[in-house]
Order: sequence, then C-alpha cells, then structure tokens
Amino acid sequence: MRAAVTREGRMYVADVSEPVPGPGQVLVETLACGICGSDLHVMTHMDRLVEAARSSGAPVEMDMDPGRELVMGHEFCARVIELGPDATGVRPGDVVVSMPLVIAPGGPFQVGYSHSYPGGYGERMVLTAALCAKVPDGVDFRRAALTEPIAVGVHAVARSRIQKGEGALVLGCGPIGLAVIAALKLEGIEPVVAADFSPARRALAARMGAHVVVDPQQERAIDAWGRVGGIRAPVIFEAVGVPGMLGDVMQFAPQASRIVVVGVCMEPDTIWPVFGVVKELALQFVFGYEPLEFLRTLQVIAQGQIDVAPLITGEIGIADVPSAFETLRNPREHVKVLVEPALG
Amino acid sequence: MRAAVTREGRMYVADVSEPVPGPGQVLVETLACGICGSDLHVMTHMDRLVEAARSSGAPVEMDMDPGRELVMGHEFCARVIELGPDATGVRPGDVVVSMPLVIAPGGPFQVGYSHSYPGGYGERMVLTAALCAKVPDGVDFRRAALTEPIAVGVHAVARSRIQKGEGALVLGCGPIGLAVIAALKLEGIEPVVAADFSPARRALAARMGAHVVVDPQQERAIDAWGRVGGIRAPVIFEAVGVPGMLGDVMQFAPQASRIVVVGVCMEPDTIWPVFGVVKELALQFVFGYEPLEFLRTLQVIAQGQIDVAPLITGEIGIADVPSAFETLRNPREHVKVLVEPALG
Repeated sequence: MRAAVTREGRMYVADVSEPVPGPGQVLVETLACGICGSDLHVMTHMDRLVEAARSSGAPVEMDMDPGRELVMGHEFCARVIELGPDATGVRPGDVVVSMPLVIAPGGPFQVGYSHSYPGGYGERMVLTAALCAKVPDGVDFRRAALTEPIAVGVHAVARSRIQKGEGALVLGCGPIGLAVIAALKLEGIEPVVAADFSPARRALAARMGAHVVVDPQQERAIDAWGRVGGIRAPVIFEAVGVPGMLGDVMQFAPQASRIVVVGVCMEPDTIWPVFGVVKELALQFVFGYEPLEFLRTLQVIAQGQIDVAPLITGEIGIADVPSAFETLRNPREHVKVLVEPALG
Repeated sequence: MRAAVTREGRMYVADVSEPVPGPGQVLVETLACGICGSDLHVMTHMDRLVEAARSSGAPVEMDMDPGRELVMGHEFCARVIELGPDATGVRPGDVVVSMPLVIAPGGPFQVGYSHSYPGGYGERMVLTAALCAKVPDGVDFRRAALTEPIAVGVHAVARSRIQKGEGALVLGCGPIGLAVIAALKLEGIEPVVAADFSPARRALAARMGAHVVVDPQQERAIDAWGRVGGIRAPVIFEAVGVPGMLGDVMQFAPQASRIVVVGVCMEPDTIWPVFGVVKELALQFVFGYEPLEFLRTLQVIAQGQIDVAPLITGEIGIADVPSAFETLRNPREHVKVLVEPALG
C-alpha cells in the first residue's frame, strides 16, 4: 500500500507491505489522520526517545528503529474493510475511531509508533476490534478524526482536578492548548486566560472558549490573569513544551499554584527547585487519556458540544505529507492538518 | 548580647545590640536552638536567595543583606523574660516554642532570617506573644527545640495526602528525612523504605520507624522498595536536595508516582520533562508547616509519640557555633546539633 514513511530522520512516500489482520483485529482504510507535533519530534529524536522510554520504565514499549521504515499517524478515523479471525463488535463499512493501541502478544503496540502496526499516514491499518468505537451516522469523519487530540485535553483537565470556582491559565494555543481550552469550557470553568504569540491561534483560542487571550509580547500571561482572575491562583496548563518554559512558569506562578504539564518537552530542561519549594507548587505531568475519556470525547464531538471544525486548517493527500512536515516545523498558522488518502 | 553572627559568608561570635520587645511581643532567653542545614545554604547563597525570593513572588520577605551582621537560628525553645506592651497569653518564666515568625508592621519577618529579629544563635530573641506555645511542664527544652524541624516532616506527610494502604520511599535521612519518617510512623504508614549513604543515619532511620533501610551504594532505593512494597507505586519523599537528585527520581519513579520534594535544592537543576509526561508523575513541592501542624508537633513530642531524643547528636555553646558550621558541611555523623547559650 502507499504510505508516507519516515526513516533516518527523513520523510518520503513509498510502497510498504499490506497490513494483515490477526485474531480479534480488523483491517481498515484510513479516511483522515491528523498530523501530530509529536510525530515531528519522533522523526528528529527517535533514538533518544526509545532510550528514554526504556531507561525510565515508561509503560509504553517503543518498538521503533530509526533505520527501518515507519508509518506514523495516530489521530485517525477509518472505515472497516475486513474482519480478522474472531473479530466482533464491528462490521465492514463501519466508520470507527480507536485509541492508537493494538493489544497483541508481545505488546501492547502503539499504532503509528511501531513497525508492526502502521499508522494513519498510510492507506490501510490494522486495529484491535474491541477498541474500535463506531462514529455515529451523519458525523463527518474529519471531525471524528479530532477525537484523539481533543481527548488529550479532556484528560489533562480531568487530571488537574480543576473545580468550578477555579480559573485556568493556558500557555500555548497549539492543538493541545486548544484541546485543553475546549475541555475547560465543557466543564464550565471560568475565567480561562490563554496565551500564544500567533494571532491566528489566539483567535481560535477565543473561538474554543477562552475568555481572555493575550499576546505574551504585549502582556505577561500571569498579568492578564491578574486582571480577570484576581488574587486566586489559576490552574496553569503548560502546553508549549519547549526548554525554559517550565522554569519560567515556576518563577511566575503564584503561591500554591497547580501546574499541569501537558506540553511534551523532549529535551533536558533547567528548573530552580527552590521556586517550587518556597511557593509549594504542584506539578502534575499528564499524558494520553483513559479509554472512557476517549469515548466521551467522541460523543461530545459528535453531539457538537465541542465544535472541532475550526481546528482543521488543512487537508492533504499522502503525497503531500513530506512537504507538510516541513511546513509544520514553524506551525504558527496551522492547527490541525488532516491526511486523507482519498485526496492523493 | 552575645551571638554567633554571619556576615559576608563568614561566621563568628560577636556582641550585637539587645533586642527590645515591641507591642504584643515578648523578650525570651534562648534555651536551645537547632542548627539547620538551610542556614549553611543561606550563609553561602544569601544574595541568590534574596533575589530568587523576590523574583518569584515567594510569600516570605527576605530582609537580609550579606554585608550586615545576621543572627540566624529558627529551631528554638526559649524562656520568657519580659513582656512588651499589650503582650498577653504568656508569663515570665514560661518555657515556649514558636514558629519563627514575627508579625509586625512592615512584616511578617522571619526570626533568624531578618536583621530586625535575631534568631536562636544569640542569647536573647524577641517573639510574637500570640505565636508562643507553652511547653508542658516536665518536657525537656532540648526535645521541645525539635518541634520546628519535626513539623516540617509532619507538614510534608500531610501535603502528600498519603493514605493507609500506601507506602513511602524516603530518600535522604538527614534531619528532614528523619522527620518525614517519624511523621509517616505517626500516621501508621507502612512499609516505609529509607535510603542514605551514612550508616549512622540509616540506624536512626530504623529507630524513627523505617521498616527497611538501604545503602544506595549497595542497592538502588527503588529496588529495595520493589522487594517490600511490591508493584504499588510508593509516595516518594525527596529529602536530599542536591542537583541531579530530582532528575534521578523522575527517571526511576514508577508510573503515576507522587514525588514530594522536601529537600531544598538552592541551585539550578536539570530534569527530563518527558519522563514526567510519559509516566504521569506528580511533583508536590512542600515548605514549612501550618500553625496547627506546629502545635500538634509540639504535642506529639511532649507526649512521647515521637521520640526525638536520638536525633540530638551534639550540644554546644555559642562559642562553638562557627566550628560546628564547618563540621556540618559534611554532616554524615550528625543529625541535630543544639546551640545552648548556657553552655558558653
């Protein structure tokens, strides 16, 4: 099948072997798959990531070798083509989403981060039937493909234990920051103050539910919080994930702040622990989502409680994935680019 | 009065001006004052600390100038000599402990970290009458002087929200680590696994209530936890506070661990945020104690529920404070050295 593959830090289109569904699995055709910033990191830092995951005892096995072709893509919506042995619960023709996880001997494996389970930058994938959730009739597959990244925001907000009466400060309005804003709105949290350098992203932040948006070049995010949130400490969502950000947040965070780290910084970072100590800060690092959070996210997207359409800023075929990866290295104008194999 | 003073990074004995109690304050004579590791840090890094506290918006004002003489000492037990105007609740002759805080116009001030309010390395201090707690009759003033450092452990354990059924891993068995162990025992937490390079401190850890003690040169602390704690993630108390420690803890901590940072690292430190993210770690930085925690700590010490006597490894007069500060830079054999002005 055709796929955009990565190997040795490069991305190109190639023919790769056809995936074959095993017991309890289904073969699906990719309808749409979002490009995730993590994939750009993985392409550049694959060696380091695999080593970090192993040495730290992370619960996800990283079955990746930079020297072998890898088909990434883990934010997908797909149509079932064929059932493997003993696969139940879905039928050919069903449009489904799934957590990007395949449960199989030697696994679990991450779809899109495994040589055994190609992801949504290819024409077809193999998924675990039991993890597939049917997309309700009449829901656009493009919107359904946003389930995965929005679930990350839903999970981060749940883990933060933010309560009504508290407010939030969201740093960074890329896909994850916007997902956090949408999830905060869903929970009725206010005020939500959001900060990003990009005017386009600030406009989207407002559209997704931020009450105040701020350009950090014009005003410090924490000062904007002070204007609208008053003396309460906000729950701070760090969704930028570049070195230095965490140190800055710990320096400006008010006494007893909770900081939710949802931006994945793949490089070593320097902090001043003494800032954390004297202000009794709490840092909660968050990752992924629970199965029920994933299902709830599909539901709220399908019912329109979160309108994800504005987040889709591009649609491309497989042929255009390599150039999109270049463009997205400086993604200020883009939020979510969908790869749709039907487009070429 | 006589006092051990610090100035420009040096420590020496000098005559300093007599403190005078203002409204609501009392004049006390120091009976015993523990030497705290933080004082060694403050002597070396005073400039940096004052700047860090200001730039981060810490709630404690640091009224310190490295060029002026400072009388440190904030872990004290003292006898009331004289009441200032309108001071109520205590009488001359009462033996008291107090949080090292003076509430006065322009403050609050930290006793021992302020040029206006000399600490327990001097013969006399001024305290806020309303913050003084009477030490019950028959309780040795040396034991009462341990209220402050033990309260730090009581507070750290409370903030950790550790519950019966969970266990703890305590890294570092200096005064703070030992206070944490004592507080964990008070809450009935088991198992408690404690690690320190010093055989003397490991012996004290066992005496204070650790169920398993480990020499990190012989066995990794997390491996010792695995032997006795099984597959549960421990609540990890980081009580070492040197650069690199937090990064190590984040690397070896199991999935979903809570890490309570109670060791104060005064230098910049490098972490890998990605370890925190993929394992969803929670870091709670803690500092000091609440007033009720301080009072409860005095009570449990007075009633013998925490036996602090083994922690007192030295008693010296004011004259010996400068040499004690040198010795304590490599404190493996010492836990708590008490300064008792009556000794000379």
